[in-house]
Amino acid sequence: MAEEFIAAIDLGGTNLKIALLDLKFRVRHKEVLNTAGFTGRESLISAIVNSVTGILKENKLNKSSLLGVGLGLPGPIDYKKGIVHFFPNIPGWKHVRLKAVLQKRLKLPVFIDNDAKVMCLAEYRLGAAAGSKNALCVTLGTGVGGGIIIDGSLYRGSSNAAGEIGHMPINEKGPRCNCGGYGCLESYVGNKRILEEARKSFGSGITLEKLSFQAKKRDRKAKRFWARVAQRLSVALTAATNLLNPDCIVIGGGVAEAGKILFDNVKKEIASRAMKVQARQVKVLKAKLGADAGLIGAAILVKENFKR
Amino acid sequence: MAEEFIAAIDLGGTNLKIALLDLKFRVRHKEVLNTAGFTGRESLISAIVNSVTGILKENKLNKSSLLGVGLGLPGPIDYKKGIVHFFPNIPGWKHVRLKAVLQKRLKLPVFIDNDAKVMCLAEYRLGAAAGSKNALCVTLGTGVGGGIIIDGSLYRGSSNAAGEIGHMPINEKGPRCNCGGYGCLESYVGNKRILEEARKSFGSGITLEKLSFQAKKRDRKAKRFWARVAQRLSVALTAATNLLNPDCIVIGGGVAEAGKILFDNVKKEIASRAMKVQARQVKVLKAKLGADAGLIGAAILVKENFKR
Repeated sequence: MAEEFIAAIDLGGTNLKIALLDLKFRVRHKEVLNTAGFTGRESLISAIVNSVTGILKENKLNKSSLLGVGLGLPGPIDYKKGIVHFFPNIPGWKHVRLKAVLQKRLKLPVFIDNDAKVMCLAEYRLGAAAGSKNALCVTLGTGVGGGIIIDGSLYRGSSNAAGEIGHMPINEKGPRCNCGGYGCLESYVGNKRILEEARKSFGSGITLEKLSFQAKKRDRKAKRFWARVAQRLSVALTAATNLLNPDCIVIGGGVAEAGKILFDNVKKEIASRAMKVQARQVKVLKAKLGADAGLIGAAILVKENFKR
Repeated sequence: MAEEFIAAIDLGGTNLKIALLDLKFRVRHKEVLNTAGFTGRESLISAIVNSVTGILKENKLNKSSLLGVGLGLPGPIDYKKGIVHFFPNIPGWKHVRLKAVLQKRLKLPVFIDNDAKVMCLAEYRLGAAAGSKNALCVTLGTGVGGGIIIDGSLYRGSSNAAGEIGHMPINEKGPRCNCGGYGCLESYVGNKRILEEARKSFGSGITLEKLSFQAKKRDRKAKRFWARVAQRLSVALTAATNLLNPDCIVIGGGVAEAGKILFDNVKKEIASRAMKVQARQVKVLKAKLGADAGLIGAAILVKENFKR
């Protein structure tokens, strides 16, 4: 029997990544396109379709070699019905039956889910959360996303919207958030917000990479800055820890690259803020799968939902 | 075959309730003792043992009529190992193997769990949360406790400590809580704290019952007071709603008796603060089983864990 593959797509506000993975979730071929290159919904859907047929052609495979196509998408998704509710950072998407559209055009089984959820799935099956029973995964980027593993399965909630750790309020009178709420974690530690704050203290030339570098060089002001980010993040993580009593919290995404300074502070804060039993149980871990986590998770989504 | 019963005990800081329930969880006989009457751990354990043998005698039953004994207890419990970690409001209990001690003295199967957890179980099986798939139960009393139903089962977390909604922080720089954290919900809406605040505005003669009555009579100051309590409660409930995407939130305990004014405000706040998909899904409900919820839940605990 010929080897089987899964096509995985990780759509972000910046990049559209497409990869072929084998059934052990090893990335065998990968391409990265620029999301901004596609104007409008139809053009992006065609790009997805073409990228799948293109990557098959390049690898001299035909559709029968594919188990299916999995997509991790940057917004709230009804994974069961295969509907994109909307994308906060890509205009033109509202209540799109993407699964049905792609299945019709690709003539392959398609599975779609939120990007933070598939990353959580990947970290749980093959990454930092492997072996845990209950886990919380957080992705720190422009948005702050999350996924919850309960008793060994991705927990989706009653309308497939669970895991929104970025929208746990950390101050009752905090600033208004894009989601409509007040004082949400994301409005304090989302990429853009951190950068804005950094510019106030470090000037307009600062980047988060520079700030991490300076903190590693033991610059006191930079260390204080990351300690403040960690503190705010830890308020929501403490709430989730006391509520869910997980084995681990896995933190990934761009901001997690701040590294040791961020993680040391988050660990310290949770140890001092969370309830003793919960604090003793929970490990704070860096995501393991890096930039491929979304692709791996999208492939896992296919394998776990595919029925022959 | 003779009818079978379960003995259930609901231990609180104030009362020790003991009841006989049938296997349909109807309370057939109930007694209430004063917890403060028992000085020290040994005396309380003896009171529990005597109350079980006493209630059997009064009902002309012997031990073979009992499926087992269930206890809802006011503190963190390892229900699997049957250990009381401690009771925040009853001194002298630390790491007590209560299940083993009672089983030895009663020669009956004994099951113990946290009081908010067993109340949650009761509201899920027979009360306001019946028919839900995912639910959050909150008990508002001296402490603020909680329980989570996930996919139809009580979710316990990795060290049986999940559900502590009272210790979700609602302000990063809030007051120090008994648990060691900062800005926990309980430190804003626990019974004692609400009463303290009420005394500042309404004088030392005020009680929470009077305040509810005044709010029902449309006293503006009293209405504002409850709106404030509801707002703080709703910050934590919004966090839990966005994270867990439940079908319902069931609120019980003494403070819930404030009634419509509290529930109307909580519903309004969650509708405006939580994410749209989650807010549309979640119903905010008053607990149905009232003062017997703890006893019913303790009996359910026995039936669900008993193996013939």
